[in-house]
Amino acid sequence: MSTQTDRTTVKRAAERGVYDRATVDAILDEAILCHVGIVLHDEKPPTPMVIPTLHARIDDHLLLHGSVASRMLRAAAAQEICVTVTLVDGFVLARSAFHHSMNYRSVVILGTPEVVPDDQKPAALDALTEALVPGRLPFLRPMTDKEVRATSVLRLPITEASAKVRTGPPIDDEEDYELEMWAGVLPVSTTYGKPLIDPGSRFPEAEVPRHVSGYQRPGPGPKPATT
Amino acid sequence: MSTQTDRTTVKRAAERGVYDRATVDAILDEAILCHVGIVLHDEKPPTPMVIPTLHARIDDHLLLHGSVASRMLRAAAAQEICVTVTLVDGFVLARSAFHHSMNYRSVVILGTPEVVPDDQKPAALDALTEALVPGRLPFLRPMTDKEVRATSVLRLPITEASAKVRTGPPIDDEEDYELEMWAGVLPVSTTYGKPLIDPGSRFPEAEVPRHVSGYQRPGPGPKPATT
Repeated sequence: MSTQTDRTTVKRAAERGVYDRATVDAILDEAILCHVGIVLHDEKPPTPMVIPTLHARIDDHLLLHGSVASRMLRAAAAQEICVTVTLVDGFVLARSAFHHSMNYRSVVILGTPEVVPDDQKPAALDALTEALVPGRLPFLRPMTDKEVRATSVLRLPITEASAKVRTGPPIDDEEDYELEMWAGVLPVSTTYGKPLIDPGSRFPEAEVPRHVSGYQRPGPGPKPATT
Repeated sequence: MSTQTDRTTVKRAAERGVYDRATVDAILDEAILCHVGIVLHDEKPPTPMVIPTLHARIDDHLLLHGSVASRMLRAAAAQEICVTVTLVDGFVLARSAFHHSMNYRSVVILGTPEVVPDDQKPAALDALTEALVPGRLPFLRPMTDKEVRATSVLRLPITEASAKVRTGPPIDDEEDYELEMWAGVLPVSTTYGKPLIDPGSRFPEAEVPRHVSGYQRPGPGPKPATT
């Protein structure tokens, strides 16, 4: 299934553009957070605002959530937004500054989100918790109605989207390969440290559950052999 | 020096707002990349676009760069933009889904960038390279005039900006502390792997230089004792 439209077609470094849903989904699932772009239409001229927030992909939708008092969320519910997710995989250290680059996987989704109706909010909020820390939900005290009411959830269809992927070693000018220097890639990854128990815990001997001590995100996703 | 204006005043979780330049600068310096929000004014109504890109802070300005052919860069040079940078420090695993959170440090800068004039571009490009990999510049073959001409650099003043910072353990509802479960923080950090030499290198025995094998970014920056 392709998510390519004219607006999501990658123009710069077009060979890095990827439009299949499997690649898009894998990047969305691996990323901890996204950056949501909205337009502040009240300003003259309209200005952009970019806010980091957690997300969860459920099938063909991206879920976003926040306080019902959030200005960003209220604005986002009534307009076309841009959600961008970026994973950094490495620094590409070439033989010239010009050919330095990053290995990365990013996704841009355009669309107008809809507000998740009240009766579907509990399931959506559960999905958001499980997306952040898979396996944690059964350990928690259940959500209250008041908490559900205090939270807004938006659902953005993943229909107009593109991924951009760079992998592999530097691509230098032919003559620069003769320069006697080290060139290559410095891998970058996200890692998880030793879990820190809440110092206010009344159960300091509580065992760290497996979903915390063995925390893992999905991924890394499929990496097309592009440069 | 404060960068607080009405527009950059943090409204949601206002106690997490920080406006001193030292905090803002430390977050900008530690982050590998930023997300640039622009408005596509040609669309009716105007729509947002968010693009990940590298940045470098030089004193009171944030530098952005790209191909002179980049639509994003050309659009950004002529309008007010929003640059957002986010560092994830940990997952805050509370006793209820509602109080789950992230420890993070983020910065939002609003402003209209100016195009760095030609005579200042080489120095700006050097600064961008050094910001990504400090110490690498002396190893590289010098930039050519053609490469400098092919690259645009924008300079955004860091005058209207805010940081938002959350640190520390979960803050649960008082009665939930009686629940016998593990709660706390799972630290998250960015780490660098074993450098991978370019398989196309004609000098496979070249020593990995210290600026690569001992790579480190600045930070973590000052973390105000907020919750």
